[in-house]
Amino acid sequence: MLQKTSQSKVKRSANRASYKKADLYPIIDDLKMAHICFSQDDSPMSIPMLCWRVDDAIYIHGSRGSRLVKQLTNGSKSCVSFAELNSWVMAKSAFHHSANYRSAVLFGAFETVDDDEAQVRVYRHFVEQLEPGRWDHIRPPNEKEIKATTLLKMVIDEGAVKVRRGGPIDDEDDFSMAVWVGELPWVKTQGEKIIHQPSSESR
Amino acid sequence: MLQKTSQSKVKRSANRASYKKADLYPIIDDLKMAHICFSQDDSPMSIPMLCWRVDDAIYIHGSRGSRLVKQLTNGSKSCVSFAELNSWVMAKSAFHHSANYRSAVLFGAFETVDDDEAQVRVYRHFVEQLEPGRWDHIRPPNEKEIKATTLLKMVIDEGAVKVRRGGPIDDEDDFSMAVWVGELPWVKTQGEKIIHQPSSESR
Repeated sequence: MLQKTSQSKVKRSANRASYKKADLYPIIDDLKMAHICFSQDDSPMSIPMLCWRVDDAIYIHGSRGSRLVKQLTNGSKSCVSFAELNSWVMAKSAFHHSANYRSAVLFGAFETVDDDEAQVRVYRHFVEQLEPGRWDHIRPPNEKEIKATTLLKMVIDEGAVKVRRGGPIDDEDDFSMAVWVGELPWVKTQGEKIIHQPSSESR
Repeated sequence: MLQKTSQSKVKRSANRASYKKADLYPIIDDLKMAHICFSQDDSPMSIPMLCWRVDDAIYIHGSRGSRLVKQLTNGSKSCVSFAELNSWVMAKSAFHHSANYRSAVLFGAFETVDDDEAQVRVYRHFVEQLEPGRWDHIRPPNEKEIKATTLLKMVIDEGAVKVRRGGPIDDEDDFSMAVWVGELPWVKTQGEKIIHQPSSESR
């Protein structure tokens, strides 16, 4: 279970909250993109980044020595959020229009993964999650690449999941209005792979 | 143009950055979900929320008197980020695996929209963006609903857009490896509407 603290406890629509890791993990694994929020020069900063999970930790990576990496590894706290919009919820009244979504917020601090073998293991998991079996066919990271990149880890501990599903909640007085109600879904599917010729051109 | 400041200027892969409102607006309009980042009791907090644009401002809404609304309207700064993952970028080496995405980060402060007519106008835009023509068929917000909700506005001013497109950047030494390279796309489409019977049941 995730730690439910004064910070992580969901107060509004608490019936939509969960603190189960079993509810959290598919969200992280399906999205693999998080918003990393931290304080920089006393101002809030949020940066969208690739973020993946191995066991009970999430990982992000950045250029060694970058402002971001320095900021995230100085011991200060971070907040990491994930969200996916699943459908618009269409109601009889403007007020009851809403959205279905899956979301999660985690609190903690990032630490660097210094051990080279541990780093390679975590990158291997990332590539294997994108395409199972791929790792055996690509070139693994060399020493120079490992040195150029900092891998950051946050143990999954404190946080919450919030999910909304289903149709609108309407006022009974509005039921007779002649307008359709329900959901306008957003469907996310993995398309066919697009094969490129190898290129070293920057993009 | 967005204000390019020490805070908003993109330093890494600056060739992927843009400060044009014309590049920003489709991202906000297509996603309509943002991560609202602020400082709470000296800790960073990030909350995924519906967020939409009317002219040169973004809007979010929350329950009047909620902790979130109080926090965002006390004059302190917020950071608002948007991101969409478009494809995995598959390379010859682990290191060059990447992602294509559209993202944006905005900086500023939220203010409340107090005028009732202005509030209704902004909600109207939201509903009309979901389904053009719908506003004329639904019940507009009544006084009680307007009073229960706080509409917050941030003028679009300081920020940046960052977008990656295309295939991987590989090292020429790796070109001969026998593994496909290119993109694994994520395709987001609007599905058929799902019509429900009206219900007042909470979800």
